[in-house]
Amino acid sequence: MNEHVIPLDAEAHAVERPEDHHDDLRLWLRLLTCTTLIEGEIRRRLRDSFDVTLPRFDLMAQLDKAPDGLTLSELSKRMMVSNGNVTGLVERLVESGHLVRETSKTDRRAQVIRLTPLGRAEFRAMAEEHEGWIAEMFCELTPREREDLMRLLAKTKMSTRRAIEGARP
Amino acid sequence: MNEHVIPLDAEAHAVERPEDHHDDLRLWLRLLTCTTLIEGEIRRRLRDSFDVTLPRFDLMAQLDKAPDGLTLSELSKRMMVSNGNVTGLVERLVESGHLVRETSKTDRRAQVIRLTPLGRAEFRAMAEEHEGWIAEMFCELTPREREDLMRLLAKTKMSTRRAIEGARP
Repeated sequence: MNEHVIPLDAEAHAVERPEDHHDDLRLWLRLLTCTTLIEGEIRRRLRDSFDVTLPRFDLMAQLDKAPDGLTLSELSKRMMVSNGNVTGLVERLVESGHLVRETSKTDRRAQVIRLTPLGRAEFRAMAEEHEGWIAEMFCELTPREREDLMRLLAKTKMSTRRAIEGARP
Repeated sequence: MNEHVIPLDAEAHAVERPEDHHDDLRLWLRLLTCTTLIEGEIRRRLRDSFDVTLPRFDLMAQLDKAPDGLTLSELSKRMMVSNGNVTGLVERLVESGHLVRETSKTDRRAQVIRLTPLGRAEFRAMAEEHEGWIAEMFCELTPREREDLMRLLAKTKMSTRRAIEGARP
């Protein structure tokens, strides 16, 4: 098929039963559909309830987890959703008093970005609501099913990471 | 928490064990991570192997499934990935001979877009490679695990759809 590293048994299996690839494609499309549905609804609720965009919520979430602040490049790397313009977002949140830029405690040549007390308080209020929304999305799954899904997604993540690393020259 | 419709037992459960919401948040972030990893790698491989963007591949995939063609608005609705500019994409693919615009067979007032034989042949070649890439991402999951994941994602999809419908006025 191509030069990527694939375990031999998976390849042999694929030759014998080509329809299995269709099943994997359906699995991927279902994964994508779930993510798109949840993300779209979270985006809509953040806008309707807080007049906030998902990239802005995501940016504040990353800073909330980093009490010592993050540099602009660390922040960009950690964003979970496609970030649009991180620099522009930071500018606006500094102007509105949600973020400050200051000299890093560990590297006096670097500038870090931190949440202000106002930014943190506003983020925490949104995050609490957000957590309830997410719970609502998964509410028809039993605790056991959630555990199984968590485990299977962990395995998918590992499998994908190895496929990515195997494809790198 | 808010006015959304939530089954009473899920809500009661949440009050008793607030940490469960954190688990759901972790589940959502893992789902998002898997999707982001796979989508990013597919995007990279489409670019490196075929010099094609993911929205372009996705647009051709939707048309490949619709031999009678689709109107521009049907096409936009069916796109799986955020579509950028569907009109612009269609224009460029008409110019390069991959798509045609013509009068609908069922509604003579409507214009539909279809793949040309060239467009179909090029898409099918890419789709075959793409299917192999997806199989590679999931290759460490056993057939049983793939079935379980498929079933759990179906349940997540239903649960999310009902949460979305319940939240609509």
